[in-house]
This record gives sequence, structure tokens and C-alpha cells, in this order.
Amino acid sequence: MTDTKITLPESEIPTHFYNLAADLPTPLEPPLHPGTRLPIGPEDLAPIFPMGLIRQEVSLDREIEIPGEVRDIYRLYRPSPVFRARALEELLDTPAHIYYKSEHVSPVGSHKLNTAIMQAYMNKQEGVRRLATETGAGQWGSALACACKLMGMECMVYMVRVSYDMKPYRRIMMKTYGAEVVASPSDLTAAGRAILAEDPETPGSLGIAISEAVEDAAKREDTKYSLGSVLNHVLLHQTIIGQEARKQMEIAGEYPDVIIGCHGGGSNFAGIAFPFLTDKISGRRKNLRAIAVEPAACPSLTAGKREYDFGDVAGTTPLLMMHTLGHKFIPAPVHAGGLRYHGSAPLVSHVLALGLIEAEAYHQGEVFESAVKFAHCEGTIPAPESAHAIHSAMVHALRARESGESKVILFNLSGHGYFDMASYEKFLSGAMARND
Amino acid sequence: MTDTKITLPESEIPTHFYNLAADLPTPLEPPLHPGTRLPIGPEDLAPIFPMGLIRQEVSLDREIEIPGEVRDIYRLYRPSPVFRARALEELLDTPAHIYYKSEHVSPVGSHKLNTAIMQAYMNKQEGVRRLATETGAGQWGSALACACKLMGMECMVYMVRVSYDMKPYRRIMMKTYGAEVVASPSDLTAAGRAILAEDPETPGSLGIAISEAVEDAAKREDTKYSLGSVLNHVLLHQTIIGQEARKQMEIAGEYPDVIIGCHGGGSNFAGIAFPFLTDKISGRRKNLRAIAVEPAACPSLTAGKREYDFGDVAGTTPLLMMHTLGHKFIPAPVHAGGLRYHGSAPLVSHVLALGLIEAEAYHQGEVFESAVKFAHCEGTIPAPESAHAIHSAMVHALRARESGESKVILFNLSGHGYFDMASYEKFLSGAMARND
Repeated sequence: MTDTKITLPESEIPTHFYNLAADLPTPLEPPLHPGTRLPIGPEDLAPIFPMGLIRQEVSLDREIEIPGEVRDIYRLYRPSPVFRARALEELLDTPAHIYYKSEHVSPVGSHKLNTAIMQAYMNKQEGVRRLATETGAGQWGSALACACKLMGMECMVYMVRVSYDMKPYRRIMMKTYGAEVVASPSDLTAAGRAILAEDPETPGSLGIAISEAVEDAAKREDTKYSLGSVLNHVLLHQTIIGQEARKQMEIAGEYPDVIIGCHGGGSNFAGIAFPFLTDKISGRRKNLRAIAVEPAACPSLTAGKREYDFGDVAGTTPLLMMHTLGHKFIPAPVHAGGLRYHGSAPLVSHVLALGLIEAEAYHQGEVFESAVKFAHCEGTIPAPESAHAIHSAMVHALRARESGESKVILFNLSGHGYFDMASYEKFLSGAMARND
Repeated sequence: MTDTKITLPESEIPTHFYNLAADLPTPLEPPLHPGTRLPIGPEDLAPIFPMGLIRQEVSLDREIEIPGEVRDIYRLYRPSPVFRARALEELLDTPAHIYYKSEHVSPVGSHKLNTAIMQAYMNKQEGVRRLATETGAGQWGSALACACKLMGMECMVYMVRVSYDMKPYRRIMMKTYGAEVVASPSDLTAAGRAILAEDPETPGSLGIAISEAVEDAAKREDTKYSLGSVLNHVLLHQTIIGQEARKQMEIAGEYPDVIIGCHGGGSNFAGIAFPFLTDKISGRRKNLRAIAVEPAACPSLTAGKREYDFGDVAGTTPLLMMHTLGHKFIPAPVHAGGLRYHGSAPLVSHVLALGLIEAEAYHQGEVFESAVKFAHCEGTIPAPESAHAIHSAMVHALRARESGESKVILFNLSGHGYFDMASYEKFLSGAMARND
């Protein structure tokens, strides 16, 4: 039997991030100021982001160097393996070859740590001692908490109250990494106090938590704000995933026909897909399909409009040109908490509008059904978010069986499901319909 | 910077288990029949174990081949990396070099899967369709559930009621792998019904759950019993850990002065230590120190007597010659559930009595303190069991600093702590004293 895992030595950790913006046939529309509706400049973002990251946000350089100190910390879990899912292929009786990149091997259990480490480093370089952020289900909060501790910085996490109360384990994880974690809305910010005054029993929302974290960063000299998806620089940092995967697929002697990633804010999909997408743009791989997969309950790419919209519910962030369901859209409480975002990354929206990528949406019942099949074959229990990519990969593998084509499918396993057992229980107990 | 991880290709997955029994200066005392107190023979074990495993249990062959099908499943997560803990060395300001073998990378999060896969395979070879076992905290139950599913077999887990109620996530994990899980005592067995008749509200115990699983296996033609530690064949299967680590330390150009593993039933310690211990027995490495670390609340090696004792509370298993606190001993409810066993592996007890290994005991408060420091340096949050090994490694690294000696320390990180966040919360909230 040939190897199940395709591994790379630490010397193959990428030295540069790949910046898709440099290869776009038409440029990205700029973000607009929420008040003036004019394009914003670096100075508008300076109160909450360090200049190094703002420069990356607007850069058109094709390659952006990864600092040695960041690469050294990546050594804790990178390069991550690419697996050939032979047992899954057998189960599906498909001629397709199924590969998955395994970002769940990071210490916090997801790809989020890739950008968290880079963001912490870039802030530290400019004398920032403390980062503030928001978190819903807790994936991003625990990644930033871990990165800050590894980098010797402080971390402040505003965690949506309903998650704070219902998902205590992610909260404890962040505290184990030394972060301060408060339920949002909190009485630490004017934004939080205003909401609490109106409704002391509010469950909170990601939009409110963003407002609190931004306010925290804006008012403290030693603190900046950090975001886990959507923005260009965040997607940029995740391209190490796809760059490694390119080398690994080369070792396997294959090139993917279909590349699949789940899609919430866009960073996981971009991470695996963008470093391959350059081949489609250049015409070297015209038939490459890159597919972003979202929950049917929050279909920003498949059912949203592409227009300028706010990143938060309150309408205080810059306006971004993106596929959106409207910033007031409240998605149903599906279990893939990381995919419940009304908008999408401007870069992902842009390449979707250009026809360079595709989007699919699935119901959580069918997604969990595929997640359990995957666990039975591969051992790893996937995060509900990642299970969207798994389900799509299985759909395409079955289509390959029907058509008799030997497709090569690569998807991103963005995280494990060890913190999502309550969702699996709901599925296993039959409380989740296939079309739920 | 040199590499953080020392990895091996899949071709270096060991081809044979290493059997320490072949190298012992004096032979192991045989297990005795609980009724006659005479040495038991293979036929006594045949109702509950397959002959292949019984032969391994008593084998004196130095090497026992690992079947190709088992090695192929090991490819899902093996060889596991050895990490150099540079950040921890820096924190401790020690001249010691600290390495750890990372068994937490298995899909179920611990080393238990190594023997689970092998046991499932050996049973399947003899036509067994279903395995029954007990589990306390759930580490072993989830490993066997996963192994059975990967091997296409059924799995029945009797889970101690108090864990079943208090630790639902491990239970759901087992169910996700398709296992049947019942709270023990259950009404499915005579043993369970007898206990329930006496006390319908009983929290259960590992001893009761063992009785139920053994009864289940004994009465069903298609079912055998499976144990996750203590017995010779279980320790044998874990020696792939130490064999890989030997090769990895060779690559690092170092040989450990001190090898450390936590100790409950003994399989994790034996797995890392036995393949090195042969060098001490042969005289090639006379000064090698191998240290088994246990909780102060359950000090079978450091405070127990070495004598024939039962493996279970009810006194129904064969008598084993081992360090024991007495089979009626009920350890305090420390958070390292996997280390709460009154006895120890006969092989570990034997080499301790021969002075070939040492034992240490620590309080859980100091152990958690070290666990959090480890997470801050290395990112990974360890299982409370594994944290005992971490704490000992830190103690020995600090001693090296005092003495100015450049010791090489290798410990086994047997599992991650993603399912143990409630224990971390107790520690972080100050509810656990340092000498608790």
C-alpha cells in the first residue's frame, strides 16, 4: 500500500504568503467609509489595526514574506499532512481520488491559528501589547488566545453571551491560554452597556461583540483589534494551506480537478483554493473547479446579492463589496457556528462574480450524515463547518462514479469536532432532519 | 533553527511489537485462578479472549509481527512526531533537552487506539464479530469504538454510570463511531441487575463495568472481551511508541537519560519505556532512568505492596502479581480518571521490583500547574493523565538546572485535554489546591 499521508518537512513551510489580489483580472472594489461612503484610506484603519497589516490589506504584491519568528511557531504543527481518503473512496465505490488537507492538527484544532499567529506577530512588531477580538462559537477566540500566549501578548475576548453560557469548554480553553474572556454584551464598553440597559437578558450577537472589541481597541493605547476572517490580510495568511497542498499534490503525482472548502467568512476556502486558482486565471488549468460550500441556512454566496454592505449588524464597520444576505440577516441557529455570517470575504465574492469559483449550499442534516460516514472511514470526527466540505466532496465523488470519470478531489478539513459533540448528539438522536 | 518535530515516514512504522518478557532477568509470576489459586492456562481465558491474543499474553518471543492490515490502519496517524520542547526549556531556563512523543495526534486523541486496532484485528481473524468492554472516563471506550468501526466490527461499551451522566461528550463520541453505549450497572447483565436490585441509584464503578463486559462476552458466541491496559498483550501493542521514539532520538543525535510516562494501568508508560529498557537490562545503558508517574491519590507503585491481587473490585478476575493498593481500594475522584486504578501492570510491577524502573507520585494541583505552563509554551493542552508526565519532566529539568547537567529527557504525551476542560476550569478557578 502507498502512503496514506503526504507529509512535508519543516523546511517546506512556505516562506511567503500568496496574494491573489496581484493576479486578479479586474481589481477589487475599495472599502467605503460608513459615514462618507468614500473609499477609506490607511489612516481610517490605523486606530484599530497595525500599519503592517493595513499594508497587507491593500497590497498588490504577489508574494509577501513570512517572518522567521512566525515560521518557527508554525513548526509546532506545520506543514500539516494531506491525507488520501482511501476508505472513503471504497465506501463510495468511486473512481475519484479523494484527498484532504488536515488543518485540524493545529493545537487549537483548526486553521484559525495560521492567521492568529501572524496577526499577533505583526501587532507585537509595532509595540502592541494586547489584542481584543470577538468570538461566537469560540474557534477564533481560542486561536487568538493561543497565539497571543505563544507570542507573549495579552488577549481580550468578547464572547457572545449565548455561547459563553452554552459552550463553556471553548471559554475554558481560552482561559487556559491565559486570555481574559467576558460575555458580550458586557459592562466594559459603552456599546455593551447601551445594549444591556435596553435588554439585560439579551443573548448577544456577533455584531454586538465586534462593536465591543473594536471600541476596546480604539480606546486603549496598548491594544489593537483582530479579526479571524473576511478581510484580505486574513485570507492572505491562510494561503499557506494551499501552497503546502500544491507541493503535496505534486508528490502524489496528481493535480486536483475539484478543490473544496467550507465557507463562512471565507478564510478557510481561500486558504486552500487561492494558491491553485492562479493556475485557472493564467489559463494553465482552465477546467479547475474551486467550490465554496455554505449552509443552506446562511447562503450568502448562493442566494445573496453582491453589493456594498456593512460587516456588522450595527452598521458601524466600513462598507465592503461582497455577497451578502443583508447585515440585518439573522441566520437560523445551525450547528456550524463558524459559517453563520451574513456576508463573505470581498476577495471570495470578487472571484465568484468573475466566474472563477463556484458556490454550493447544503442542509445540515445531510452534512452531518456525511460527517459520520467520514468518521467511520477516517477516524477523525470533523467540525460541523468542515463537514460541509466533506459532504460536497462526497457528492462530487458520487457524480464521478455515475459518469465513470476518475476525478481528483481535494478538500480542506479545517477543524475537528471534539468541541461539537452536542451537535453530533442532536444528529444521532434523530432530532435533526436531513433537510434541516 | 533546527526542526521542532522529528518525524518518520510511514515506511518506518514498526513491523514488530517488542516483547519485554523475552529480556527479563527473572520470569514473570503467572496469573492464578481466582478459585483454585493455581496458575491458569490458555483454556481458562479462551471464553473471553481470542487465542491469538492469549498466545501473545504468554509469549516469550522477543519480537511479534504486526499484521499488514494493522500497520495500514496505523498509517492514519503514525508514526507520531517527537517534539523538542524548546519554549518549555527556555521557560525553565534549563540546560536539559526536553523531548516528547505525541500520542495525542491519534483520531481519538490518545495512545489507546494503538492496542484497540490490534485487538480488534486479532479478534476479527478468529471470527469474532463484536467486542465488549468497560470504560470509566471514556478514553478507552472511544478508542475501541473507533477501532471496531474501522475494522467493520460491532462494539459494546459499559460506561460507569457517573461518567455516563457527567461526561456526555465521550459517550457521544463513542456513539458517533457506531458503538452501543450503556450506563453501568445496566439491566443487560446478571451482574448489573444484581447491583441495581440492591441500589438502583448506584453511581457504578469500573469494577462493576468490567464484570458486565466480561459476562456479556462470556455468554455470546459472537463476542469477546477487550481490555485497554494492565495485561501483557496490551503493553506489548504499545511498544510501537517507544520503538518509533528510539529512531527519532537517533535522528536527533541524542539518547534519553530519563524516560517518563504517566502510570494508571501501565500501558502508556510501558509503551514509551520498554523499547529503551532493553538497553538497561543488557548493560548498554546502565544509567538510563525510566520513571512511571502516578497521582498521589492513587499511588499503587509508590505506596502499594507487590502481591497477588484481583484486577476488579468484585474479585472475579484471575489474580495478578502486581503492585496494588488492594482491590477494594477506592481512589479519591482526581481528574486524571485514566490513572485511578488500584493495581498496575504485572510487567511494570516486575521491572519496578527488579530496580529497573522508578516511580514517582504527584498531587493534582501541582500537575495542573505544569499542564497550563506546557500549554502556554507548546500550544497543546494535555490530558490530565499526560500532565503527570509533563510535571515530572519539568521537575527533572529543574534539577538539571540546579546540578548544571545537560540531561536529555523524553516523556510521552499520551493524550490531549480537549475532553477535560471541566477539570481545567476547576484548576483555573482556584478550586484545586496545589497539594490536592
